[in-house]
Amino acid sequence: MTTVRILISSKEGVFDPEGKVVQSGLERLGYAGVARVRVGKVIELELDATGDELADQVASMCSAFLVNPVIEDYSFEVVEA
Amino acid sequence: MTTVRILISSKEGVFDPEGKVVQSGLERLGYAGVARVRVGKVIELELDATGDELADQVASMCSAFLVNPVIEDYSFEVVEA
Repeated sequence: MTTVRILISSKEGVFDPEGKVVQSGLERLGYAGVARVRVGKVIELELDATGDELADQVASMCSAFLVNPVIEDYSFEVVEA
Repeated sequence: MTTVRILISSKEGVFDPEGKVVQSGLERLGYAGVARVRVGKVIELELDATGDELADQVASMCSAFLVNPVIEDYSFEVVEA
């Protein structure tokens, strides 16, 4: 099994209310110099595939189900093969 | 400014309903061999710090606000210095 980490975040320019809340919360707690906070999702899963087959399967799962391509971008990395 | 990516996931053993939903959804769509799905959060932010100061600031923000240490673990990486 291969462990894959998929990172999903809203596209540049799409409003990210959760990011705004985190940023203002940090400022209120006294953390200065915090900028451009974006909150997204991380999905870790194990797949029974490797190499190109793995990449194809992750791309297919993301476009079919996990990611909204209108407002979200994703990337993935293999954590453990 | 340094761009930091904080990965927050529920601890091993903590029930992850969102992960279960994603896993059963993928199975229903015909993706076989998907296991151990965990859904977490990723927070990307820019900080005006580097090195040890950066690590201290991220650890402080996580323990004070971003992470629930009872049920969540976190890790972070510098994306862009």
